[in-house]
Amino acid sequence: MSVRAINAASPQSFILTLPDLPLARGGRVRRHRAAAWWWSREGDTPAQPQPGVPTVLLVHALTGSAQAGGKGGWWEPLIGPGRALDPAKVRLVCFNNLGSFYGSSAPGMPGWPKGRAVTLTSIDLARAILLGLDALGLKSVQLAAGGSLGGMVVLALAALAPKRFARIMPVATTATASAWIVGWNHVARGILRLDPGYPHHGARGLEVARQLAMLTYRAEPGLATKHSATRGIGSYLEHHGSKLHGRFTAACYESQLDAMDHHDLTRPLPGTRGPALARIQAPALVVDVDTDQLFTPAQSTALAAALRAHGRTVQRATLRSPHGHDAFLLEWEQLARLVQRALRLPPA
Amino acid sequence: MSVRAINAASPQSFILTLPDLPLARGGRVRRHRAAAWWWSREGDTPAQPQPGVPTVLLVHALTGSAQAGGKGGWWEPLIGPGRALDPAKVRLVCFNNLGSFYGSSAPGMPGWPKGRAVTLTSIDLARAILLGLDALGLKSVQLAAGGSLGGMVVLALAALAPKRFARIMPVATTATASAWIVGWNHVARGILRLDPGYPHHGARGLEVARQLAMLTYRAEPGLATKHSATRGIGSYLEHHGSKLHGRFTAACYESQLDAMDHHDLTRPLPGTRGPALARIQAPALVVDVDTDQLFTPAQSTALAAALRAHGRTVQRATLRSPHGHDAFLLEWEQLARLVQRALRLPPA
Repeated sequence: MSVRAINAASPQSFILTLPDLPLARGGRVRRHRAAAWWWSREGDTPAQPQPGVPTVLLVHALTGSAQAGGKGGWWEPLIGPGRALDPAKVRLVCFNNLGSFYGSSAPGMPGWPKGRAVTLTSIDLARAILLGLDALGLKSVQLAAGGSLGGMVVLALAALAPKRFARIMPVATTATASAWIVGWNHVARGILRLDPGYPHHGARGLEVARQLAMLTYRAEPGLATKHSATRGIGSYLEHHGSKLHGRFTAACYESQLDAMDHHDLTRPLPGTRGPALARIQAPALVVDVDTDQLFTPAQSTALAAALRAHGRTVQRATLRSPHGHDAFLLEWEQLARLVQRALRLPPA
Repeated sequence: MSVRAINAASPQSFILTLPDLPLARGGRVRRHRAAAWWWSREGDTPAQPQPGVPTVLLVHALTGSAQAGGKGGWWEPLIGPGRALDPAKVRLVCFNNLGSFYGSSAPGMPGWPKGRAVTLTSIDLARAILLGLDALGLKSVQLAAGGSLGGMVVLALAALAPKRFARIMPVATTATASAWIVGWNHVARGILRLDPGYPHHGARGLEVARQLAMLTYRAEPGLATKHSATRGIGSYLEHHGSKLHGRFTAACYESQLDAMDHHDLTRPLPGTRGPALARIQAPALVVDVDTDQLFTPAQSTALAAALRAHGRTVQRATLRSPHGHDAFLLEWEQLARLVQRALRLPPA
């Protein structure tokens, strides 16, 4: 490593063309592509990654995009020069999830399997990311981190390619979708399908489904503080609902709900035996949110216990927040400390 | 009182014709009627109530009916000979809430205000009940009890007619609708209005709104126990959704959401000064549910504190349950003890 100061370059967004992807529950994604985001030091580029630069993979949640950092990024305050995830020190990589609407292959796009019901799982999303890492020539990942659905995919990645991930930080997530989560997603689907424009031209259904999600992502104390005048809550929900409509379709939204519903690492991966979770080798920092009503702390406790039972090194941490599940997108100071702690997890 | 044994008669259901009801937020209910239910000792009838028989008034929640006890009644296990609320000892009375769909005046029925938006409040529901008590000649009530929206109405009754209620037992409720509750109701309205048959012929919208409500009424631990196989949760929700559809309309459902949203006893009653809550004189047993995610325990704590601040006698109790808000319709043994405790509250 040179003795001169290492500077971060600018973040880059680009589209990767990837090999066809056979899906775990049937169907095949052709003309497979993934929107990708990259932020690293000067000279370390997607076209020519430098050896020796540690890779941090970030995986987004239900309606996120590949843009993890930079202005408007979903983890913006954690990422940048001098921040917890410093592109002068680590290579930050994120992909838009398969089936989502921000540049990756998705329902309604050319090459998406037609004429049959396609049900994504967290395994499919993870496999698409592995193909993305292959395309970039990134063989090993020092840390994979993500919250909610992103945390599910982080776990699936470490189960699919145990030697490739040195550390994982699953946040506000679970080893298997609970009846509670599946129940909420069932209601969300019911809402989407009420819309006469479903599945590709729904508008209001998507807005209302998003409003439902907003509330499950929050908690009463945080909402009470923000809306002491209860009349403001309707406008707040409408605002967030309309933000999603226009940048997402019902079919894409459902594909991400599918991925969440069919996440179950207590069962074997296709073609293998034993629980998928037992394949994970990476030391893990398992983080929950004390007020999380959707991915409850009990789910993180069960996840940590299962990983430990399989002999893994597990550290536990809790985000203290009045904001519920969404704390993983809000509690920046606590998250910054936890990300740095995850980077220091002793290797397996 | 005679020395021979007092026997309970059979429960009775009937329709009362009531005076017109001007609504708190405008509009007037004409051809006003209320479905009523009555269970008392032999000889104590709605046509000729006996003096000296103590009245217990029960108020139902969002989708309940006047039928509190007897087969299928919403508090069936608490009510009957030898039970906590024994019709040989007390006169049990319940009315179908105004705007609901089980025999009382409601949207779409003759006499309901037309050509304008009608917004019910908990005050209107309480006033309709007061007219019902007048019609039956019941001047004083020994105990008024109800959960959720029913608890809101119990509080409104005691504020509207402070001398008429000797004791109250508000369960899993609040002095004022929180932003959290109003937010969930906003989403429920969004669902109802997605249905092309809205407001009088909606079917699927009502089912999905009911599924949403089912989940807010429950809690994760109870659901996890019931549905260890997550695939069953969808059928469970569909079952409960379809039970409501066919016996309720979207317009009626919305009228009950209105009543909940516009419940605010921290403000004055129409034509009075000072918070409505300060008018209550009845000693209260304020009951919450430890896992209630909708009407959180903090709301009950605030209600009890406000009543105490106004000089009232308040006892507090908590239902311990894995089932969330719905514990007030499930935890029979605890409820039986609490109802009996409420009946023994020392008078003001």
